[in-house]
Amino acid sequence: MKRTKIKYALNAEAPMDEILIKGWVRTKRDNKGFSFVELNDGSCLMNIQTVIDHTPEIVTVLEKVGTGASVAIEGELIESPGKGQKWEIRGKSIELLGEADQETFPLQKKRHSDEFLRSIAHLRPRTNKYGAIFRMRSELAQAIHKFFAEKDFFYIHTPIITGSDCEGAGEMFRVTSLEAGSQLPPEEDFFGQPSQLTVSGQLSAEMFSLSLGDVYTFGPTFRAENSNTPRHVAEFWMIEPEMAFADLADDMDLGEEMIKYLITHILDNCASDVELFAKWVDKSLMPTLETILNEPFKRLPYTEAIDILKKTKKKFEYPVEWGWTFRLSTSGSCAKKSSRSRFMFTIIPRPSSHFTCA
Amino acid sequence: MKRTKIKYALNAEAPMDEILIKGWVRTKRDNKGFSFVELNDGSCLMNIQTVIDHTPEIVTVLEKVGTGASVAIEGELIESPGKGQKWEIRGKSIELLGEADQETFPLQKKRHSDEFLRSIAHLRPRTNKYGAIFRMRSELAQAIHKFFAEKDFFYIHTPIITGSDCEGAGEMFRVTSLEAGSQLPPEEDFFGQPSQLTVSGQLSAEMFSLSLGDVYTFGPTFRAENSNTPRHVAEFWMIEPEMAFADLADDMDLGEEMIKYLITHILDNCASDVELFAKWVDKSLMPTLETILNEPFKRLPYTEAIDILKKTKKKFEYPVEWGWTFRLSTSGSCAKKSSRSRFMFTIIPRPSSHFTCA
Repeated sequence: MKRTKIKYALNAEAPMDEILIKGWVRTKRDNKGFSFVELNDGSCLMNIQTVIDHTPEIVTVLEKVGTGASVAIEGELIESPGKGQKWEIRGKSIELLGEADQETFPLQKKRHSDEFLRSIAHLRPRTNKYGAIFRMRSELAQAIHKFFAEKDFFYIHTPIITGSDCEGAGEMFRVTSLEAGSQLPPEEDFFGQPSQLTVSGQLSAEMFSLSLGDVYTFGPTFRAENSNTPRHVAEFWMIEPEMAFADLADDMDLGEEMIKYLITHILDNCASDVELFAKWVDKSLMPTLETILNEPFKRLPYTEAIDILKKTKKKFEYPVEWGWTFRLSTSGSCAKKSSRSRFMFTIIPRPSSHFTCA
Repeated sequence: MKRTKIKYALNAEAPMDEILIKGWVRTKRDNKGFSFVELNDGSCLMNIQTVIDHTPEIVTVLEKVGTGASVAIEGELIESPGKGQKWEIRGKSIELLGEADQETFPLQKKRHSDEFLRSIAHLRPRTNKYGAIFRMRSELAQAIHKFFAEKDFFYIHTPIITGSDCEGAGEMFRVTSLEAGSQLPPEEDFFGQPSQLTVSGQLSAEMFSLSLGDVYTFGPTFRAENSNTPRHVAEFWMIEPEMAFADLADDMDLGEEMIKYLITHILDNCASDVELFAKWVDKSLMPTLETILNEPFKRLPYTEAIDILKKTKKKFEYPVEWGWTFRLSTSGSCAKKSSRSRFMFTIIPRPSSHFTCA
């Protein structure tokens, strides 16, 4: 029999006389004459509950089935008398595919800290929180490609190993095939010259946009700053659109449209995963998403932003004056003063550093 | 007026009284009283022809317009009396957006060698051949994501910088933030240990598939072999699907289905670009694609493959016998002997190295 993913079992429109599901045990509770086994297969946040009547063979298998074990259950899909679930499975047979040693299996039915889960990264996606993160990340990546494809952008893979520093966006990692400590000159190295990990695909993307029109990159990018703040990571994936025959207004429109497209997509396609975060991680998530979605992003000329800051009572390290460089923290002050909605700077004076914020 | 991409102008269903196009000049031919300007904007292989009647102002602009220049042309879209094109533009105004110095602009209306184009990589995508390559690459990348999304696979971004050698697939580049020649130990380096560029996302993908079910990676991968053959590159993008609760037959079915899906997609969405290659680069392209598309991929057990090789008259460096390791060249001999269609090995003996070929 072909396996049904739990996502589809839970969304079934009618009972099924025969169903085969496979997944990892979240909990098992033994009762007199039967056991409850909750299974998750990663296809969605929700588990499916199975009820299995005891037979001598089944009891022998069930003895080895604990949290984390991998099992296959055949049975029928029936309406669940229990609360909070439409369907459950009445299991007729259970097969143990992979045992999880209950003495050492580290995940339990309780909330684990991010720090602890980081130490067992290979099992992290089996938790509700990280499963949801990785499903949402996947959906968002798909939506990014869909968004740009619908707008006739071409997807470009720009070089990861590079000899160019692009816009000088950050410290670069060196890439070499010489042994550590080797005194050989760069001419003897793999590429015959010093090579680094890219900090941006922009330089290549700009070149492609001057041939193909509208292009974007979506790939890994690197920074070697030894800074352990939430805003710095050594490796991350970045989206860089480049448009020919476009101006700053087109650019801002595209950015706004993309953010709204992604939020709509994730709410439509990962509702349960988003709700998990709204409930347990960030209570303000839903109103924030709704505000971003429903309000136009303000276009805030630089001079107006300076005026807003001058009127705040907040003290800044350097006095606010025209020509001043915005940082993320100070642009936040603008946002709060102007409205709760998102905004973008327009018209930035030359002496101030390049800055866009959404 | 909003700019129309040439792809849409060429596929118009009716004439248009007003149209604005922007692009790069492929050729300009001056006649008495009017000029022909062929424009390409990268949205498709084809150029659009514009006919511009001379006025004193227009002549002043046209004098500066040569191959490679970037221009905006306003006019009307009319049926073309010329051959090979349904529509052309009768230009009423032309604006020079970017001049190309005719003394130094390297692209001409002739076939350039790949080697020459490699030396002007920033202009390469403006040629028919490379424009087609990058449009097809983009379409194929989109189709890869679409294929896996339709099959409920999650897209995973696996680490690029890694401390693990995965399956030992090849020589690895070292990644470091220490200066070249530094004698500091790896403990003093960015990650506090030796770090490399990944040769495969498989290890991480396997871990994710044991939580999320069906996952795939599609990202850059690296090899530091100093080998200048067409089969070796230092940096390339690789697709790695991993499925939980699946066997070798599922794996082969997925591979076959994906290849056929991609070919169908590219023929449906990049017909002109594919035709360019069938005409100028590889005359056997279309029959090859059709064979791959229409014939099932054979599943060839290892033992049968050995039998086929034993019966060939071809001489191999080492005598063919059961347990022998297949290489790409020898598997080609199998393919030729068994049929023109694609095949995959099934059941490979342990002493032989891992090998799949499509």
